[in-house]
Amino acid sequence: MGKDKVPYQLKTPKGTKDWEGKDMVIRDRIFNAVTTVFKRHGAVTIDTPVFELRPILSGKYGEDSKLIYDLSDQGGELCSLRYDLTVPFARWLAMNPSIQSIKRYHIAKVYRRDQPAMTKGRMREFYQCDFDVAGVYDRMVPDAEILRIVCEVFGEQGLGWTQKGGFLIKINHRGVLDGIFEVCGVPKEKIRTISSAVDKLDKSPWEEVKKEMVEEKGLSEEVADKIWEFVQRRGGKDVMEELRKDERVLGNQNLVKGLEDMELLFEYLGAFGVLDKVEFNLSLARGLDYYTGVIFEVVTEGSAPSNTTGQKLQKAAKKEKTNEFDEDRSNDPSVGVGSVAAGGRYDELVGMFSGKTQIPCVGISFGVDRIFSITKARMEADKGAAAVRSTEVDVFVMAFGGKGFTGLLKERMQVTKTLWDAGIKAEFAYKQKPKLPAQFKSAEQSGIPFAVILGEDEQAQGKVKIKEMGLPEGHPEKDGVTVDTKDLVQEVREKLRRKAESDGLVEGMTELDTNAGGENLGHDGGP
Amino acid sequence: MGKDKVPYQLKTPKGTKDWEGKDMVIRDRIFNAVTTVFKRHGAVTIDTPVFELRPILSGKYGEDSKLIYDLSDQGGELCSLRYDLTVPFARWLAMNPSIQSIKRYHIAKVYRRDQPAMTKGRMREFYQCDFDVAGVYDRMVPDAEILRIVCEVFGEQGLGWTQKGGFLIKINHRGVLDGIFEVCGVPKEKIRTISSAVDKLDKSPWEEVKKEMVEEKGLSEEVADKIWEFVQRRGGKDVMEELRKDERVLGNQNLVKGLEDMELLFEYLGAFGVLDKVEFNLSLARGLDYYTGVIFEVVTEGSAPSNTTGQKLQKAAKKEKTNEFDEDRSNDPSVGVGSVAAGGRYDELVGMFSGKTQIPCVGISFGVDRIFSITKARMEADKGAAAVRSTEVDVFVMAFGGKGFTGLLKERMQVTKTLWDAGIKAEFAYKQKPKLPAQFKSAEQSGIPFAVILGEDEQAQGKVKIKEMGLPEGHPEKDGVTVDTKDLVQEVREKLRRKAESDGLVEGMTELDTNAGGENLGHDGGP
Repeated sequence: MGKDKVPYQLKTPKGTKDWEGKDMVIRDRIFNAVTTVFKRHGAVTIDTPVFELRPILSGKYGEDSKLIYDLSDQGGELCSLRYDLTVPFARWLAMNPSIQSIKRYHIAKVYRRDQPAMTKGRMREFYQCDFDVAGVYDRMVPDAEILRIVCEVFGEQGLGWTQKGGFLIKINHRGVLDGIFEVCGVPKEKIRTISSAVDKLDKSPWEEVKKEMVEEKGLSEEVADKIWEFVQRRGGKDVMEELRKDERVLGNQNLVKGLEDMELLFEYLGAFGVLDKVEFNLSLARGLDYYTGVIFEVVTEGSAPSNTTGQKLQKAAKKEKTNEFDEDRSNDPSVGVGSVAAGGRYDELVGMFSGKTQIPCVGISFGVDRIFSITKARMEADKGAAAVRSTEVDVFVMAFGGKGFTGLLKERMQVTKTLWDAGIKAEFAYKQKPKLPAQFKSAEQSGIPFAVILGEDEQAQGKVKIKEMGLPEGHPEKDGVTVDTKDLVQEVREKLRRKAESDGLVEGMTELDTNAGGENLGHDGGP
Repeated sequence: MGKDKVPYQLKTPKGTKDWEGKDMVIRDRIFNAVTTVFKRHGAVTIDTPVFELRPILSGKYGEDSKLIYDLSDQGGELCSLRYDLTVPFARWLAMNPSIQSIKRYHIAKVYRRDQPAMTKGRMREFYQCDFDVAGVYDRMVPDAEILRIVCEVFGEQGLGWTQKGGFLIKINHRGVLDGIFEVCGVPKEKIRTISSAVDKLDKSPWEEVKKEMVEEKGLSEEVADKIWEFVQRRGGKDVMEELRKDERVLGNQNLVKGLEDMELLFEYLGAFGVLDKVEFNLSLARGLDYYTGVIFEVVTEGSAPSNTTGQKLQKAAKKEKTNEFDEDRSNDPSVGVGSVAAGGRYDELVGMFSGKTQIPCVGISFGVDRIFSITKARMEADKGAAAVRSTEVDVFVMAFGGKGFTGLLKERMQVTKTLWDAGIKAEFAYKQKPKLPAQFKSAEQSGIPFAVILGEDEQAQGKVKIKEMGLPEGHPEKDGVTVDTKDLVQEVREKLRRKAESDGLVEGMTELDTNAGGENLGHDGGP
């Protein structure tokens, strides 16, 4: 335990970070908001190990497999850190054949040895937040519920993004897309690579994508132009009706079946009341190979500024006209972050782990880090971030006195104990004789709303003072109110209740009322 | 995606497991109960990466360093999985010198390449739950608060173990212990190894420990007997008073200072109202080298049956006389699991990372897996586990009809949407034409308390039926009540409120009232 400088750099590994302070509070609130939505839809959560046997991950991620973190061979099994939450979920389903259907969510860190770009939020250790429905069900019903869940997560019932630039779910279908490639005359072996080229249309103009198709990928210019005719279409049922008038479409099995799926999906989305948040977008392709049906991607208003999606959202934003919208959007935190959630149907992944068990699945993955960056930046723009408290403490118990002041440490401890016993969040200074200004400063820095003040005179009379922090000059209770010590808990509860009401929050009180977590645990004690 | 069997074993890596179903729900309740206590004391949480630069972990764990999991060298920095949460916390403090004081908790997985013993709950990937106070404060004040927190976690305000066999905090002090070794005549270089021998007294009789001291470690028999004279003592202030009468004690600096600390600590524990939960136990030594002051260990009634601690607890248990206590305790889930929490003061660990920053710390680590095993086994003994639901869904929306029944899928979707909009947790069958018994079975299996039933006749009149599940024959509402569809949300809320009241729980309703997590996120929308 020397006094010399340590001989290595004091830091976290490349591409990782510590989460702390207000960031941690904001992140937890996002997790809580999202979890509340998931539970409303009957989901359970499953927690898998951070590493898997290496063969479980092999052959699932194509070229990206090189980004997998391996554990050292220290004897025994070869393992690797998980790369996403979908493959572990599929492995779990294959291992548990008695479970034929489940709605599960999982919020956890995943690991990729990518080149980190911290400013863009690309990390080597980062959170994913997945919701998946597994099971054999009637067509498109769980798919529709997944999209409803997306709307609840980003909408008023979740993160409340509706009025702040909005969000849009782009939807396509692998069958529709493959059918289009077939009727346009793309050779079978080129379908996946041409699909990847189409996927770039959200970032690049058609000319560039066409060049890639023709010059790099050897497609004829005529076929490319036919593809372009299809993939620029986006909208709702109008797109489906147009496609239905096209003879080429009606002659292709993939297209007919895919269109039926999309029509059914839109019908259900209507019943769920979310048609205004979705767009059938024929240029959406998604990279991962394992998708087999509907695919989707959630973009924010700013994340696709150059195409019609962006225009549609900007129009919607202007209609909703709130203070957040400047004409100059270059500072908008959501610009350029790409999609904030994405997913689709993958009916064959579980079967890769087991010849017997083949469970169809559909799911969505929320990009927590992007959602966090946008939320935080918006809170800062709103000055909302300044109001975020790191702790939830309601009362700071302090003491003051004149000459010969003992500090009343044990008395402060006893009063704090009484508050803790009542489930009230409380702190006191860890000092024998703290100074009053220092105690007030501690309370202010933590944004603690109430001070309970012990004085030697009041002590002698069995009384304490309760003072609400930050009251304006001239307020009748500016200097606090003196109450009998035996009534302290009741008085503090009442003040917290009133404050919560005036702040428009019920939470403070509900936490008090239900703080005894033990009640859930089946014990028979408790007050 | 072949139909053949996969060429590797489908399992999680050795010493790891998937958390699922009711286990996951029970575990989350434990985390919530513990977190509620931590927040009541003003703690914040910090989330560090799952791996650290290898030199950060080196030289911190003594012989156990061989159990550290390394990541493969794939180019770049050499990293290892974290072995505990204390070293990452100390690294974080050293990296953030502006933070001179903090109360932090951290619940996360740690990794040890130990020989797993699943039945004893020894895993290679397992949870730790740490609470630490860092900062320069007046003596023993944070130490006392840590012990108060332990009492809240295991007591009525937390896990509610008080009446189920109880728990006891054994406390000792490194200074006292080292002082004892000094006055007994243990050579300086043998102090740590003799300390390890003393630590075994909770499992082995004195004869064995003495044999180890004398035969293996070369201590004289006379010195060993002197040690025994000291370390059998346990109790409260009486032990301190006895020690104070001993001339040898008064002549040793370590002992005098350690005793002062313990006296102060017990005074503060009195103010915190937890003296009946603690024991000054001179045989407690703790393995880790980095402790510098008070050390403690929490045992349950069953975990130390052979010594006086066990006897004391058994006596206490008999006094409290509840149904859980059989004379034959061999099935008691807490027997033999060892301590459920342990910790102490470590004033020099942060300094190991930085010559400049030296921040004194005191902390506790809760053994989540042991706590989980005990909680689950007790719930099963109580039949409480059967009552644990995997999901929180309140309403199952179903339909029935006669010949030509369409299934009312879109109508069920619309009704479910209305419930979701109101924040009510609801599900429906993912089928076009589900059978009524199958729908009831789904609701029953998930323990969903209410069914909302759509019929074609009722639909035509704008009505739906609400039926509480599991009502006894003859109950006036056994067949449900018919309400106007427009009043559905209000009626369901009222029924949930009444049910929550009669179940003695307010939680159901508070969740409904505050479900819109978005309100916390500083957006200005919302209902």
